[in-house]
Amino acid sequence: MFNPDGRLFQVEYAKEAVRKGATSLGMVVKDGVVVVAHKNITEPLAVASTIQKVFKIDSYIGATYSGMVSDGLHIINVARSTSQNHRLIYNETKSIEAIAKEISSYMMQATQYGGMRPYAVSVLIGGFDDSPRLFEIEPGASFLGYKADAIGVGKKIASEILVKEYKENMNTEEAINLGIKIIKKVHEGKLTSENMDIGFIEKTQEYQMLSQNEVSKYL
Amino acid sequence: MFNPDGRLFQVEYAKEAVRKGATSLGMVVKDGVVVVAHKNITEPLAVASTIQKVFKIDSYIGATYSGMVSDGLHIINVARSTSQNHRLIYNETKSIEAIAKEISSYMMQATQYGGMRPYAVSVLIGGFDDSPRLFEIEPGASFLGYKADAIGVGKKIASEILVKEYKENMNTEEAINLGIKIIKKVHEGKLTSENMDIGFIEKTQEYQMLSQNEVSKYL
Amino acid sequence: MFNPDGRLFQVEYAKEAVRKGATSLGMVVKDGVVVVAHKNITEPLAVASTIQKVFKIDSYIGATYSGMVSDGLHIINVARSTSQNHRLIYNETKSIEAIAKEISSYMMQATQYGGMRPYAVSVLIGGFDDSPRLFEIEPGASFLGYKADAIGVGKKIASEILVKEYKENMNTEEAINLGIKIIKKVHEGKLTSENMDIGFIEKTQEYQMLSQNEVSKYL
Amino acid sequence: MFNPDGRLFQVEYAKEAVRKGATSLGMVVKDGVVVVAHKNITEPLAVASTIQKVFKIDSYIGATYSGMVSDGLHIINVARSTSQNHRLIYNETKSIEAIAKEISSYMMQATQYGGMRPYAVSVLIGGFDDSPRLFEIEPGASFLGYKADAIGVGKKIASEILVKEYKENMNTEEAINLGIKIIKKVHEGKLTSENMDIGFIEKTQEYQMLSQNEVSKYL
Amino acid sequence: MFNPDGRLFQVEYAKEAVRKGATSLGMVVKDGVVVVAHKNITEPLAVASTIQKVFKIDSYIGATYSGMVSDGLHIINVARSTSQNHRLIYNETKSIEAIAKEISSYMMQATQYGGMRPYAVSVLIGGFDDSPRLFEIEPGASFLGYKADAIGVGKKIASEILVKEYKENMNTEEAINLGIKIIKKVHEGKLTSENMDIGFIEKTQEYQMLSQNEVSKYL
Amino acid sequence: MFNPDGRLFQVEYAKEAVRKGATSLGMVVKDGVVVVAHKNITEPLAVASTIQKVFKIDSYIGATYSGMVSDGLHIINVARSTSQNHRLIYNETKSIEAIAKEISSYMMQATQYGGMRPYAVSVLIGGFDDSPRLFEIEPGASFLGYKADAIGVGKKIASEILVKEYKENMNTEEAINLGIKIIKKVHEGKLTSENMDIGFIEKTQEYQMLSQNEVSKYL
Amino acid sequence: MFNPDGRLFQVEYAKEAVRKGATSLGMVVKDGVVVVAHKNITEPLAVASTIQKVFKIDSYIGATYSGMVSDGLHIINVARSTSQNHRLIYNETKSIEAIAKEISSYMMQATQYGGMRPYAVSVLIGGFDDSPRLFEIEPGASFLGYKADAIGVGKKIASEILVKEYKENMNTEEAINLGIKIIKKVHEGKLTSENMDIGFIEKTQEYQMLSQNEVSKYL
Repeated sequence: MFNPDGRLFQVEYAKEAVRKGATSLGMVVKDGVVVVAHKNITEPLAVASTIQKVFKIDSYIGATYSGMVSDGLHIINVARSTSQNHRLIYNETKSIEAIAKEISSYMMQATQYGGMRPYAVSVLIGGFDDSPRLFEIEPGASFLGYKADAIGVGKKIASEILVKEYKENMNTEEAINLGIKIIKKVHEGKLTSENMDIGFIEKTQEYQMLSQNEVSKYL
Repeated sequence: MFNPDGRLFQVEYAKEAVRKGATSLGMVVKDGVVVVAHKNITEPLAVASTIQKVFKIDSYIGATYSGMVSDGLHIINVARSTSQNHRLIYNETKSIEAIAKEISSYMMQATQYGGMRPYAVSVLIGGFDDSPRLFEIEPGASFLGYKADAIGVGKKIASEILVKEYKENMNTEEAINLGIKIIKKVHEGKLTSENMDIGFIEKTQEYQMLSQNEVSKYL
Repeated sequence: MFNPDGRLFQVEYAKEAVRKGATSLGMVVKDGVVVVAHKNITEPLAVASTIQKVFKIDSYIGATYSGMVSDGLHIINVARSTSQNHRLIYNETKSIEAIAKEISSYMMQATQYGGMRPYAVSVLIGGFDDSPRLFEIEPGASFLGYKADAIGVGKKIASEILVKEYKENMNTEEAINLGIKIIKKVHEGKLTSENMDIGFIEKTQEYQMLSQNEVSKYL
Repeated sequence: MFNPDGRLFQVEYAKEAVRKGATSLGMVVKDGVVVVAHKNITEPLAVASTIQKVFKIDSYIGATYSGMVSDGLHIINVARSTSQNHRLIYNETKSIEAIAKEISSYMMQATQYGGMRPYAVSVLIGGFDDSPRLFEIEPGASFLGYKADAIGVGKKIASEILVKEYKENMNTEEAINLGIKIIKKVHEGKLTSENMDIGFIEKTQEYQMLSQNEVSKYL
Repeated sequence: MFNPDGRLFQVEYAKEAVRKGATSLGMVVKDGVVVVAHKNITEPLAVASTIQKVFKIDSYIGATYSGMVSDGLHIINVARSTSQNHRLIYNETKSIEAIAKEISSYMMQATQYGGMRPYAVSVLIGGFDDSPRLFEIEPGASFLGYKADAIGVGKKIASEILVKEYKENMNTEEAINLGIKIIKKVHEGKLTSENMDIGFIEKTQEYQMLSQNEVSKYL
Repeated sequence: MFNPDGRLFQVEYAKEAVRKGATSLGMVVKDGVVVVAHKNITEPLAVASTIQKVFKIDSYIGATYSGMVSDGLHIINVARSTSQNHRLIYNETKSIEAIAKEISSYMMQATQYGGMRPYAVSVLIGGFDDSPRLFEIEPGASFLGYKADAIGVGKKIASEILVKEYKENMNTEEAINLGIKIIKKVHEGKLTSENMDIGFIEKTQEYQMLSQNEVSKYL
Repeated sequence: MFNPDGRLFQVEYAKEAVRKGATSLGMVVKDGVVVVAHKNITEPLAVASTIQKVFKIDSYIGATYSGMVSDGLHIINVARSTSQNHRLIYNETKSIEAIAKEISSYMMQATQYGGMRPYAVSVLIGGFDDSPRLFEIEPGASFLGYKADAIGVGKKIASEILVKEYKENMNTEEAINLGIKIIKKVHEGKLTSENMDIGFIEKTQEYQMLSQNEVSKYL
């Protein structure tokens, strides 16, 4: 399953699937996290709202993904169960880093055994526990924390803009504006509120997703 | 199982099987959903009525499929059990989106493990819960909501007509007429009531399938 | 297991085995069903009566097959158990369509998992429940109802004759005569009563197989 | 496992192994069955009597095989258990056709699943239940009744002679003489009583195998 | 697993391993059996006595093998358990033919299923039950009785000498002398008592193996 | 799974993955062990502190790894459970060598069975039990003790410097300085405290990891 | 798994791995056994004492191995459990030959089933039960007793010297000196006490390993 170069073929190919997925962004802001995700819907009669790209994992934790839709939803479910099981047993929320590690560990299994394929998704999971946190887990199951991060087809362009314009002391509103700016740049087209999922968490504000109306105001 | 391009070979090939299946359509109408399906029967002595392309899933939910017949019937059964199990346990109907997600999750398993093949069907499932709803699930297990959607061999032609002529405030009758017009266009031949399955659901009308007589009136 | 064309290789090859099997016919008649099957026995010392091609499944249900002998007998047994289990539990006969669906579902499993091969048979199952019924299930597990249908090596020739000469209001005797005429045409040789299995069911007549003497009278 | 021609490769190859096995014959006689089998022993110091080619299956049932020795003995054991189990449960002998069907069904399994190979034997099983009966089961698991039949390397030559000289109203002695004549013809060499296994069953005579002395008298 | 010629590739290759093993001989004598085995030890510091080629299976049964050492020891253990289990349950010794059949049946399994390889040994098992008996089982699992038999690298040469010089009414001593003569001929070198295992069984003499001193007297 | 050269292909390829991992070092000092690990973070917005390269295994045991991130974390967990299980059962800490052996044994399983891949990590585990100890376990599962050792992309350069400059009687501070010097040399760039994990254990000092502030003082 | 030549490919390749392992020697002496093993450590900072090449298996039994390190340790553990289990059940030490046979039987399994690889080690196990004993088990699982034997990269050179200079009535000291002489010759370099493991057993002296100081005296 390794190639002579020390890489897992199937993992590399699964990453390629992620590189074609609709772009998602996460940003740590002053006292919270903002997640902005594009829904790449080209069919005029599709109902964008039925594609969800930003998910609540727990009161103060949210997530998004890029890549194969069914795999993405599956991993989001894994994240939710991880968090809920912990809460049921210990009566407290699991730390975001711990959930990210469990997702990583779950996705690693799929790279270890024959007769399975890796999951073709990258996941951004973020929120607020002691401080705002943001993690990316990719098909090879490694995970890494970020101040700001992009996944999917626009990763390269988005990362360049983030490096230049992202600031740690941004507030939620500024981050949302930056996120939208980036998605617009990546897709070079007119964005509608329908094609965007935007969620955020603040120290004093549980996970919340913008309504389409609210998204529209930012466009 | 991934190709270097990040696609699952077997899923791509299964989609090809769907692209050869008889055309099915779904349309969200004012207070309901209409499903129109063609039965591509070329043998003169076959009994068209023994091929069912439109199915009742629950009182207010119906479905159709394009692709491999035996796979289609299997997935329709999965949809029915999902709905019935929920009703048995919770004494309420499951939301259509939730059923679509479970079908997606079921079909995803078949893409994840070696020693199985993906299901070679696309499914349209629709109905009325809080509002009229319509979803497509394809062999790669991703699902998406639509105002109006077509699957099978006529997908391209059908989609073009739908974009031009479908209107959200159509009533059931108008949608049936549009559906028949599209199927006629796709197959360029004389349609008989035998080759069409037409079902609909309205807010105040449980799942109902047109009798052959009723279909004839629309032709 | 799919080829790029969206077909299952092994299923296509299994169909090829069916295309080489001895011809079988089924016809819906006025108030019943007639099944006529050829036994392609070329060895002069073989005992034709030990090959059975037409089987009683239940009081008012019969079946025949073309293709691999051992697979055919296996699927016939599956049909019988299906019918008997139902009768044991519900104290009524299962509808013919329902049995055909269960055979289809059973044969589909063999196309779904690695480590198995598809069944190399097509089955005609017919009888009388509310009305006379006839179904074909093929190696890919799809099933379809027919007024009249042929499987096996003579399918093409037989179908052409059926289209021209079969009439829905035929009686049993006329259908048997047509069936024999077709088998004669297909095999271009002298038929003996030994090489034919003929069974029929009428509304008021349980499954019955003609004795060799009775067959002889029709030749 | 099917080739494009609709055949199972491994079954075809297993048949080739049977075509190389020592010749066995079976003949239905007036009120019984005669089985004559050659033991192809070329090593001068081998003890022919340790190779058994004709076996008692039950009081009125016998069998022989051609092909791979270890597979042959295995299938003979399957035939015996089938018969004995039935007798234990129902206190009667199973019909010969039923045993042949069970052998066929057992051998079919080995053609159905990956990770097994087909059995490389053809079996002749015969005896007296209501009337004298003789069946052949081959590696592809199909079975067929015969008046007279040959398997193994001499099948072609033996069949030609049987067609010309076998008569249904032969008695046991005549059939044994014909069988020996055929084996002599096939092997063009001097036969000894050691190289022949001859068994017979008559309506009023349980399965009996000729002693070497008795065989000698026929040579 | 079969080749087009009807042979099992892996079995043929395993036989090749046997053809390279050190030569073993068995001879039925007047009232017993003699087994003579060569140990092909080329390393000067190896301790020949640690290689055992002739084994006691039961009081009146012995065995030898040629081929892969670890497989040989494994099959010898199978033979011993078979015999002991029988004795434990029935309080009598199993017949030698029955043990040979069970070894054959055991070795056949390894040729039947994928994921295993055949055993790369031929076994000679002999002794006295009603009369002296000698059997060979080979990698393909077929078994055959012999008056006198050789396996391993010297099979061809040994068989030629046996055919000429072996006599059924030999006594134990004469057979040992013949056995040694043959092994000398096969290996064209000086034999020492260390390189020979010689065992024998007589009607009135349980299994006994010659000590090195006794072997020396025969050289 | 072996190549003709006696190597396991997959193990060799997994080693290649290790050769590309960020460099880690371990050094036995006068009364303890020092572990210095580089975090190769090239993305400016990644949060280096979320990558952990140096881990506490038990009060007096620490570890680091180079190679595939998810595999590394998995093996670290294996090390921790090994140590904790032992403590739970025996109420004492397991020796470092014993833990290294269990990791080796665990990683060996993954090289032994088909359907798994080897772990693509090398691990350095060290600490103080009777004396200071340091072990490396690599993808092929062999383990070896070291005075000082490097793994990952900088292994070659690091080893050359260690040979020249490492001294057994160094104290912790001197070893940390040497470690940092080596990592700087390997990566030819400016190191920040963020890109370094440094842990140490002394006879009288439980496992301790330097804070970023403390690391900064050494840079 | 066999090649046409009757060899197991994977076993041949595993032997190649043994041929590259560091050299080990065993010698039967007057009333005991001496085992001398080289540790091929080329890295200057490795701690040779953490590689163990000579192991105590039981009070009067020791062992060494050449080949893959993790496999060697695994098989040593198998040897120890075998001995201890026997002692627990029977309250006596198992004979050395019996342990060697169980190792052989264990290693044979790994050559028999698909989905496993053979163990890439040769093992020398020796000691004193009734007399001094020494056995070699190799990757193909065959085992053989020796007066004196070498395994690993220096097998050829070592064997030639052993043949010339080894004498059965050597005492322990003389054998250790011969062993060291051979290892020096094989490796053509300066040996240190660190690179040698030397163990011995005498009739009146339980298993003992030389300390580095003691080894030094022999160099």
